[in-house]
Amino acid sequence: MLAPKEGYQVAVVGATGAVGERMISILEERNFPVARLIPLASARSVGKEITFRGESIKVEELTEDSFEGVDLALFSAGGSISKQFAPLAAKEGCYAVDNSSAFRMEPDVPLVVPEVNPGALNSSSKIIANPNCSTIQMVVILKPIHDEFKIKRVVVSTYQSVSGSGQKAIEELKSQTKAFLEGKEPESNVYPHQIAFNCLPHIDVFLENGYTKEEMKMVNETRKILEDPGIQVCPTTVRVPVFYSHSEAINVETEKPIDSMKVIKLLSSAPGVKIIDDPENSSYPLATDAQEKDPVFVGRIRDDISGVNAINFWVVADNLRKGAALNAVQIAELLVPVK
Amino acid sequence: MLAPKEGYQVAVVGATGAVGERMISILEERNFPVARLIPLASARSVGKEITFRGESIKVEELTEDSFEGVDLALFSAGGSISKQFAPLAAKEGCYAVDNSSAFRMEPDVPLVVPEVNPGALNSSSKIIANPNCSTIQMVVILKPIHDEFKIKRVVVSTYQSVSGSGQKAIEELKSQTKAFLEGKEPESNVYPHQIAFNCLPHIDVFLENGYTKEEMKMVNETRKILEDPGIQVCPTTVRVPVFYSHSEAINVETEKPIDSMKVIKLLSSAPGVKIIDDPENSSYPLATDAQEKDPVFVGRIRDDISGVNAINFWVVADNLRKGAALNAVQIAELLVPVK
Repeated sequence: MLAPKEGYQVAVVGATGAVGERMISILEERNFPVARLIPLASARSVGKEITFRGESIKVEELTEDSFEGVDLALFSAGGSISKQFAPLAAKEGCYAVDNSSAFRMEPDVPLVVPEVNPGALNSSSKIIANPNCSTIQMVVILKPIHDEFKIKRVVVSTYQSVSGSGQKAIEELKSQTKAFLEGKEPESNVYPHQIAFNCLPHIDVFLENGYTKEEMKMVNETRKILEDPGIQVCPTTVRVPVFYSHSEAINVETEKPIDSMKVIKLLSSAPGVKIIDDPENSSYPLATDAQEKDPVFVGRIRDDISGVNAINFWVVADNLRKGAALNAVQIAELLVPVK
Repeated sequence: MLAPKEGYQVAVVGATGAVGERMISILEERNFPVARLIPLASARSVGKEITFRGESIKVEELTEDSFEGVDLALFSAGGSISKQFAPLAAKEGCYAVDNSSAFRMEPDVPLVVPEVNPGALNSSSKIIANPNCSTIQMVVILKPIHDEFKIKRVVVSTYQSVSGSGQKAIEELKSQTKAFLEGKEPESNVYPHQIAFNCLPHIDVFLENGYTKEEMKMVNETRKILEDPGIQVCPTTVRVPVFYSHSEAINVETEKPIDSMKVIKLLSSAPGVKIIDDPENSSYPLATDAQEKDPVFVGRIRDDISGVNAINFWVVADNLRKGAALNAVQIAELLVPVK
């Protein structure tokens, strides 16, 4: 818990990135008690200005001394920056909410989705990890189902937007699309293959077991967040030519008898969830609709028809908001003592 | 079987469509014994010309008399045209290989993927159905696995290209993409929502059980083609902003113990299959690479890690070729008596 105060010194590390920018705007939107905002970035970004509550604030260079007197730092500048600087922040008594994968699986570090496992924050760790984007939106839906029906196994295929790979990937999809329409050869730099008008079954690096790191994040982080090492997850993660929001096709087998009516009822009152499910009127969650929205959207909730006790659904969320910046700010909110 | 002849009178119904055009070029490529090619289409297309073996041939209007003296007709002009004209062709003694869904589930009509169930052609039916594109590429991979390990259950998520919805959908993806890049509002006519930079979990119409017709085709056609009503299939079919080729993420549970090494060995000699599976070198099947190619491509073959006896893979094929035109011509080839 943060000490009770009127307002906090809040640093955002990686303030000029897509997630950092959103962290700052969400802190403002949600009236987080900020006494002073300190946007931090690499030397390259120094001199840039960001706007917070109508005020222009100069971006400062991230250094070892950046966290003196800082109460809370939201990190979104990649794993190596987090590895180096989050422990320094913690040593200064500053909470570090880290968006990278650097600390997620450390046993002492809470891995938190506020709607799912807020209790994990009852820890002495000053570093708190924000889960992977594709995991966050999945566990928000899985949690109420697990509590009620006990999940045995999840088979998930993802449809992930390029914004998950950063601004350069967004530019690459744009420039490849433009080149393609002009009949030119699209150039690939961020991804190993053309992403425009294509689907790449490859996110993050491949591991020895044939799965990618992204896929194993979905396995391991889900178990940690749902606090059940017995949950089985079988993922295929795929990059698609979409700018913002990840979509996921999910099949969940449960121990107790499950059906779509029960799940719709359960999810209609679940925190952070919005059901969009009227297929007859072509109504279901869409990446383009989820962009810049807070909830995790779920639809196409339907009984499994393959003879097992299972349910199917389609989950969409803004990967930069609920999958990253919003979730981090929600964690920060839980650290503020209730008056 | 066709009567033994040097060459056949071959009609292509829907000759000016994307699949019809490919049927004609594939008949030429594969040296199908065509004595005369009769391109048929609606009155609207009469006067257009198609090229076959360097010759220009005028498109004729499809009428009730079109099949007199015709040996073989390849239909790709939609279900209602097939329903009306395929029985007329059959009555004339003409084989009708039908790409629509009109006759696929008729018990007397063979539903054929030549690599999978050529034996189904031992039937007196003059109408032979070509399966749905997303089913064809899946069963080419499932067949050898089923024979060796007995499949119990398949969970599949698709990434289907817009060419499956015809030329207008290709134009819609192009025009929406262009509008988007120009900062204009994309207009949707073919699909109920924007397809550019989006994923629509909706292909064909929704049925009462919450699944789409496309999804139920994958369930029912798979059982018919693999001649095993006990195979369980749980599909989610999704339209993605890709022009050509469908991709599929597939999880297959089997009765006998299965592992990736055995499956790679099995598929490396399976008919119609090409393995592309060297993830360390970013090598896996891609929609853009499969375009205009014949094989069904499979990669990312890896053991299930979710505690069940299962295997995962990623399957890609050109939906207009192996998913439609090529498969129809391959069926036709099986009807030609071996000299």
